[in-house]
Order: sequence, then C-alpha cells, then structure tokens
Amino acid sequence: MPQLSPQGPDFPARHRALLEQAVAAAGRREHWTPYPESPSKSVYGEDAAKLGETAFHDQVGRAFELPGHPGESLMSPGERSPYGFPLDIAYPRVGPDAAVAAAKAAVPAWRDAGPDVRAGVAVEILARLNASSFEIAQAVQHTTGQPFVMAFQAGGPHAQDRGLEAVAYAWAEQKRHVERARWSKPQRRGGPLVLDKRFTPVGRGVSLLVACNTFPTWNGYPGLFASLVTGNPVVVKPHAGAVLPLAITVRTAREVLAEAGFDPNLVVLAAEEPGERTAADLALHPDVRIVDFTGSTEFGDWLEANARQAVVHTEKAGLNTVVLDSTDDYRGLLGNLAFSLALYSGQMCTTPQNLLVPRAGIDTDQGTRTADEFAADLAAALDGLLADPARAAGTLGAVVNAGVRERLTRAAELGRTVRASTRIALPEHPEADVRTPLVARLDADTDRDTYTREWFGPVSFVIGTDSTEHSLRVFRDTVRAHGALTAAVHSTSEAVLAAAERSALEAGVHLSENLTGGVFVNQSAAFSDFHGSAANPAASATLSDPAFVTGRFATLQSRRPAPAEEPAEEPAEEPVDA
Amino acid sequence: MPQLSPQGPDFPARHRALLEQAVAAAGRREHWTPYPESPSKSVYGEDAAKLGETAFHDQVGRAFELPGHPGESLMSPGERSPYGFPLDIAYPRVGPDAAVAAAKAAVPAWRDAGPDVRAGVAVEILARLNASSFEIAQAVQHTTGQPFVMAFQAGGPHAQDRGLEAVAYAWAEQKRHVERARWSKPQRRGGPLVLDKRFTPVGRGVSLLVACNTFPTWNGYPGLFASLVTGNPVVVKPHAGAVLPLAITVRTAREVLAEAGFDPNLVVLAAEEPGERTAADLALHPDVRIVDFTGSTEFGDWLEANARQAVVHTEKAGLNTVVLDSTDDYRGLLGNLAFSLALYSGQMCTTPQNLLVPRAGIDTDQGTRTADEFAADLAAALDGLLADPARAAGTLGAVVNAGVRERLTRAAELGRTVRASTRIALPEHPEADVRTPLVARLDADTDRDTYTREWFGPVSFVIGTDSTEHSLRVFRDTVRAHGALTAAVHSTSEAVLAAAERSALEAGVHLSENLTGGVFVNQSAAFSDFHGSAANPAASATLSDPAFVTGRFATLQSRRPAPAEEPAEEPAEEPVDA
Repeated sequence: MPQLSPQGPDFPARHRALLEQAVAAAGRREHWTPYPESPSKSVYGEDAAKLGETAFHDQVGRAFELPGHPGESLMSPGERSPYGFPLDIAYPRVGPDAAVAAAKAAVPAWRDAGPDVRAGVAVEILARLNASSFEIAQAVQHTTGQPFVMAFQAGGPHAQDRGLEAVAYAWAEQKRHVERARWSKPQRRGGPLVLDKRFTPVGRGVSLLVACNTFPTWNGYPGLFASLVTGNPVVVKPHAGAVLPLAITVRTAREVLAEAGFDPNLVVLAAEEPGERTAADLALHPDVRIVDFTGSTEFGDWLEANARQAVVHTEKAGLNTVVLDSTDDYRGLLGNLAFSLALYSGQMCTTPQNLLVPRAGIDTDQGTRTADEFAADLAAALDGLLADPARAAGTLGAVVNAGVRERLTRAAELGRTVRASTRIALPEHPEADVRTPLVARLDADTDRDTYTREWFGPVSFVIGTDSTEHSLRVFRDTVRAHGALTAAVHSTSEAVLAAAERSALEAGVHLSENLTGGVFVNQSAAFSDFHGSAANPAASATLSDPAFVTGRFATLQSRRPAPAEEPAEEPAEEPVDA
Repeated sequence: MPQLSPQGPDFPARHRALLEQAVAAAGRREHWTPYPESPSKSVYGEDAAKLGETAFHDQVGRAFELPGHPGESLMSPGERSPYGFPLDIAYPRVGPDAAVAAAKAAVPAWRDAGPDVRAGVAVEILARLNASSFEIAQAVQHTTGQPFVMAFQAGGPHAQDRGLEAVAYAWAEQKRHVERARWSKPQRRGGPLVLDKRFTPVGRGVSLLVACNTFPTWNGYPGLFASLVTGNPVVVKPHAGAVLPLAITVRTAREVLAEAGFDPNLVVLAAEEPGERTAADLALHPDVRIVDFTGSTEFGDWLEANARQAVVHTEKAGLNTVVLDSTDDYRGLLGNLAFSLALYSGQMCTTPQNLLVPRAGIDTDQGTRTADEFAADLAAALDGLLADPARAAGTLGAVVNAGVRERLTRAAELGRTVRASTRIALPEHPEADVRTPLVARLDADTDRDTYTREWFGPVSFVIGTDSTEHSLRVFRDTVRAHGALTAAVHSTSEAVLAAAERSALEAGVHLSENLTGGVFVNQSAAFSDFHGSAANPAASATLSDPAFVTGRFATLQSRRPAPAEEPAEEPAEEPVDA
C-alpha cells in the first residue's frame, strides 16, 4: 500500500517508483492496482471502517471545513441520502468568477514546479484518499445510492486507480521530450551552428470538472488529476446531489498542496444549489480552457457546442448493447447478464440496455431458446439472483433521483413488460427506494423509436431480430448513430465473434465477449480496460489514454546560442543518414 | 540516405530502424535529419537536378496523370508561376462527395494492416518524395514564388523531415499499448479471473488536408502523414495556386500504396478552381472527421467554429514579435533580423512583424540606438543585404498573390515608411514581381489598431515603447489576444531574458533569444523545434507533438475469457502493493 502519512514534502521522490510502475502497467494492460479493493480489516486496519463511518456521521448536519477556501458565506445543496435521510451539509458559496480567479492566481508556481513535482503531489493526494476510503465510501453510498461494498470499491480504490492512471499518462506525456537540449548543426564551412534549447510543459488554463450524481469520484478523478498534473488548476463543480465525496477529495488535495508549499486554490470547490446553472456559466468563462463532464447527453452536447474556448471531454450516454447468438453456458450467460442489469439497479452508464436476440432463437447448451423464451429465462434469472434479501440489498442500489423513477414508470407504460420492476424493502433503511430491473420485450423493426433512446436506470429491452447478422447490423448502426459505452456478444462461433469485433470497431465501441463468470460488461479495470471511446457519440474521451491528457498542455520552447566559452562537441562529418 | 528504389513490399522491415531513430530523435530534440538539405550533386546524384527540371517542364501544359484516381473529367486550377509563366496543368475533377466516398471505401484493409505496416508504407512514400526533391523544388518555386534553394530545402528535405516527424509521433502513440494482453486478477477464493484482451488503434475517419499557397508541402505533410499512419484516408485539397507540389506528393503516395497492396484512394487529390469553395463543403462532410488547415485566420476560425464533427488542426496567422532590449553584437542583430524580414520577401507565417523598441533606445556595442536610429539602421542593413542582385534574388521571393501586393500598398499609405518596398528585376524572369521589405515606424500607444492586425508579406513595424518592460507587456498582451507563430528577444541581461521567457510562456509562444548568426527566428528544424503552439490563437496545433496525433485515432478493445485448456499463470497471493 502507498504510504499513508506524510513524512515530509518530498512527494516526487517518495512516489517515483509507483509512478514508473503505473506508466508501465498502462502500457502492458495486465491486472495491476496499488489500491486494494477489499474493504477488509487486514488491509485497511482494524478501525478503518469505524473511523470512516464516524467521520461521515460527524459531518452530517455541519458545515464542511475547507481552510483558506474562497467564498464568504455558506450554502447547502440539499444533499439527501437515497437511503432515506438528509445530509444537511453546508459548503462555501463561491461564484464562478471568484472560483476561476482564485484558481488562476495559483498557477505560476505550479507551472514552474514541473511535471515531476506535480505528479508526486498528485500521487500523495491519491495515497491520502486511499487512506480515507471508508469515509469516502460512506459519502458515496449516501449521495449515489450505491450499496456499501460497491460504494467502497468504485468510489474508493477503483476511483483512485483511475486517478493514478490519469496521473501516469499525464506525467509520461509531459516527459516525452527532454527538458533541455543542445542542438548542433554541422555546416559545410566553419563550425556548427549551436543552440541551447529549453522545453517547458505549460497548462492550458483553468480546468472545470462537472461531475455526475452516480459516480462522482470514479468519473471525476481522471479529469481532475490529468489537469492538475499537466499544470492546470481545477474548479470542481459537483452535482448538487453528490457534493460530499468530492468535497472530501478537494479537502485532501488542498491539504497536500499546502504542505508541498503550493496555493491550495489550485483545487477549488464550486458547489451549487439544485436548479442553479453554474456549470454553464463556469464552462463559458473565458479563462476556463478545459472541461471534463460526465452526465446527460443533452448537457454534454451543449458543452461541446458552446464551450468553444475550452477542450471539452464528455462522457454522456448511449445504447449499451448485447448481441446474443449462441452459448455453451446458458446458465452462466443468464447469471452474468442478470447481475449486470441488477448491479446498482442499472444506474450505471455501462449497464446493458438493448439485448438483441434472433426471434427464432439462439443455440444454447440447453437447446434453442427463442427470443420470448430468452426474455422469460432472463426474468427468472433476475428473480433468482434477487431472491435472497441480503444479496439483493448488496447488489441493487437506491434510486438516485426522480429521473430514474420517471423512466421506470414510462417503461412500464410501454405495455411490453416481461419482468416488472419491484421495490425491495431494506430493514435498516425503510425509506430507501430500491428497485429491481424491468425487462421489456421489443422488436427491432417496429420499436426502433423506443430502443434508440437511452433509458438510464433499471430498464432493459429484449429485442427480437431476424438473425444474428441483423442483430450485428442493428448494433453497428444504432451505436454509430447514438453511441454506447459498452457492448457485448455471446457466441460459440469464431466467425460470429470476428464479425462482432469488426462491427464494434466500425461502431467505435469496446466489446466484451462470452462473459459468463465473475467479470461483468459494466465493469472496467483501470490500467487494463479503456472506459468509453471518443469513436462514438456517447463520449468524446476515453478514460484514460494519451488523447485524454495531451490537449491539456503545450510544450513551449526557448532557444538561444550556446555560450561561446563552452565549446560544442565536434560536428559530425555529415548529417545522419539512414 | 533512405533507400530510394523499392526492392519489394516489406516497407515496415526496411524502414523500422529509421522509424526508431526518428522516435528517439523527437524525444532528444538534438539536430537530426535523414534527408540531406543540400541540393548538391554529391548528395542527390549527378543528374538529379536536371532530371527534376525536365520532369517539371515536361509537366507544364499537360494533364497530370493519377492512375485509378476518381473523377471523370479534368479541370485546371489556373496555376501560374509567380516568376511569370502559366503552368497550364489539368487535374482530375472530383466533387467532395466522390472524393470522400472513394477515400472512405479504402479504409478497412488499411485499418486492419496495423500501425507498423502503415508507418512503413509512409516512410517509403517519404523516401520516394526525397528522391523527387528536385522535381518538387521546381514545383514549389513555380507555385509559391520561393527562390530555388529555399524551394528545394523547405519544399523538399525539410518538408520530408516534418512528415517523418509526424509519422514517428503517430507510430509511437499507437504503440503505447500492447496489442494483446492477458489479464489475470487474483480472487480471495478460487482461481483468478482471466481474460484475453486485444487493443486495436482505429482511425477517426476521412481526413481533409486544406493546404496553403506558400508552403504546400512543409505545412501539409505533417497532417497528411499523421492521419495516414493513424489509419485515416486523406483527401488533399490544395490551394488553387499551388496544386502541383501536392499532386506529385499524392501520385507518389498512391504508387507506394498500390505497390504495398492497398487501395491508392487512401490518398485522393481534390483540386479546385480559384473561387470554388470546396474546402468548406469538404470540411462539413459528415464523414470528414479530421481537418488540417494552414492559411488565413478567417477561414481557420470558420473551420474551428463550423466543422464540429471533426478534430480541427489549424495554423493561421498572428503577430510575430521581436522585443529589442540590448545587444553586444548590434551588427549581427541587424544582419540576422534583416535576413529574417527579407527571406521569401516576408511571405512566411513566421516572419517578424512587430519590432518593439524603447523610444529612448537600446544599449548596443555601438552605443545607445534610439528607436528612430534602430529603424534607420535596420533599413540600411536591408539595403546592404539586398545590394547584390544575385544574393537578393536568392533571398527574396516573388509575390505569391494579389493579397500581398494589396497589403504592401496599404502599408505604404500609412505614411510612416522608413524603408520603402522596391521591386527587384530578375534577368531570367523579367515578369516576376519580387519585392523587398517595407519597414514603417509606429508607436505602441497610438498605432495599436495598425500593429495588432497581421500584415502577411514584406511589411514590418518598428514600434516605439516606453521601456523594455512596456515592450514585454505589449508582447504578452497582443500575442495572447491575437496569437503569434514566432517571437524573439535581444538582450544582454539575464533578468530581461528570464522575464521574456516568462512572458512567452504566458503568451503561449516559442521564443528565440539573441539570434545574431546563422539561425533565424523564422526557421524551425523538425525533431528539435516545435512549430506553432495550440497555446495562442495563431494555431490550434503544434508541428508536431503528441497532441497533433492522439486525436486522430482511438484504441478500441475487445476482451474474452481465456481458453480453459491453456492454464493461466499462477495467481499472485495478493494484488500488487506499492
């Protein structure tokens, strides 16, 4: 585990080895993580869980302390746990101009510090966030509605992985060029021309993070850390319903920055009340030159079209699709898919929505199953998965907001329900609105208008097609047009898998094949799986790849004649020939 | 030198070592080039110059052959040498839809070939372009008006350098991740979860190159090669006045592509007649997903605002600025600066325009020189430089188009001329309109409207300021607002140089310091100097850096359970801890 307590300010030296491992891991794409995902005492310590819970409960009902933070008054975003109680936490009230100005003023020393120092500070922030994983897990659970273990893993170590991954890319891309070079060009007559050159990575400007309600840290950390490490201050604009996880993050970042001798306003929290539209104001601020956004397609498209002074990275929504052709493990397929639909009650940008099945059926180890039979089997698998109340409580999530509830109602009104969404009672949280997935039975030809919209939440469609070939065509065409963050295929035929891979490349989406065990299409592991793709309309960025970081800085150059007193190396006879 | 004749289709193997050298050189940023810049017989062979001239003259007045190229009829863009004769060359007429469709149809095999093959083919194209440098030099001279040696160097080897640099970045960024990985995640109970993963770089879509009149190859090759190597077909839309250099390039690329077994329509020429606006139509085509543009700020801004479906790389124009504070080599300073203004008659996007001088003067080894005296000294240096007709002919260029002439007229009408632009007669080319630089004397406070516009061509201003501090402020503020492709400073004070470096970082522009010898501010060497910067309004891209290539492709992933019969490696006891 990373060192959890600071012993001095030499963060770059302390974390250099980890950073190098992270860069190598991102290239190799095998399994790698420095942040253990298990919320166990043997890993995080005997008292960690209790301390985290206490820290969370002590915070409920109080003002959140951010020493030295801009803002002269407090505001409350009105956060409320989806498990049924108000958080009543107040945060600094900071208008867009004040937030941006404070962030911008912090830049020069951060720019001059260089990429090694910036990356070292960032890894220290992540180490301390890791140590706070239980507190963050509580904050994530009670703002997003995720079940606890998921809130711990996705909101804690997995989010930290994604943050470290972004740090690694950002650091490596800034180190692609030497800091100083002596350029010596041989001349036909006389000595060479000799210049000394310097190369300085310079951030693009103030970076804005517009975070989402469901995965505030997991989706937020990549942009936050990529911008910070490339020399940009970050204004964090959380969703009004999920401020606390990012407030803890901002506090931690500011503590480390101050310890390292930097202006803590390099990371500023700009919380807003529900109904305020400060994200739009912030995104159009002329000094905001980078935007990272996770959320609705509507606002993501608006940002892309309007925040023209900025580089805009969006992760929006799409039509996550599963192509079902054949399987030699029908039970495994159903169990895996049922879990994918049930996890966090389908409130993931990666939850499958459109399940494409030939009407005449798919070949399985249990015989041919028609589309209707498959839909019934999937419904039964969901019933089985969620029969045990404890398991259901640990898998499903509480409904995060009214939009999800409304879509569930509209989906039921389609009148095509195969499996209805039900409410699960949680004894500990009687007010929590925990729902099971709804499955409806549609047709590829006649229900296009329905399934080419995104139904974020526990709503999925078994869609009958003419054939697997037809399914692949629907998959490719709908994802090209409307985007997707995930796609999957089940087939025992190498030819079908190859065709699915080709369709996925043409649609611009990552593909999971024949998942029947303990890996699910809606999970992606940092350092190995890419999340999202700029190659389809659901996103304009990938978490993380070089493209996610290169637009955040420029390498600026100065050059001057080398001092005459320091003789240059002997010129080569001829320019290098190949 | 690169191998100039094909011996078989294994271009990747043939060019692998050169590619690796190029990637290393781009990181080290020392002097490096595989393409000799000297147009000498000892380098390029006894007959190369004559063969190139013959090839050019044979082409004049005839249709340009592009076997298998789309287009059913011919058109003539009406190219005319600025040295005074018509080229009368006809090219295929291809509408935007046909050009894009042909290019798009060529994609699948090119995508499947992978980055090694694509880079190998690209380097072979460059090797053959290098062998055609004399023909290209003639074509560049007689479309741009550059003097011959410059046309050879900038249009030939230096452009090839910039092309290879883009190939190197594009190849390296696609190789950042393994092609295949086995992901094995230990579980608390039971064996590990094991997946096999594949990672495929996929091009973004059809790429459009909108090239300029003055440096069609030097400014065009980076985008052309970066897109091609990242898996994208390229539609080349030359400026109507400078088609031939890119037509030769397209022909060469198509020959190599066909030899390597690919559809030559991966590179398509879309020439237009003067006054046609096909660039705009092409840029808005939904299948065009990448645009590279060099040219006017007006059209560059239009592209950035309107070609929303594409990643747009622009190199526009700005206020190239020189801050004059002090020097210990006044004669060297004047000679160097005079050459920078005279080269190609100032028709470079890198030619200095605004020369900021304290009114009270600068300290020099020849005493203090006031702003007025400096202006007179610069005028005298220009007169001296251009006194010898042969040297003047080899330094200046022919006026490339009417816009340059109009700006010269308007500059003269300012009534502030210190040195008038004159016409130089070339005995060989009596109709050539070759002009010397105009220098006018302005003031920082009262002439802001004049010097904050770009005067592309041989027009420069000696601008009086209150002090060097004032000069630096004007430099920073005007470049931040209006952009610049180059900046320079002259000072004997380390403090002033440091302040200038800081101002340049804040303005987002590369800085040259105290150039008094054989290196000029308007020159930049591939593999060592960055050209342009996305950090100021004059450009949205740098030639070349990782950001120039990463947006051109996405790495798409597929994953599936590892085969059971192939046992995975033993799981580690615990996840890796750092």
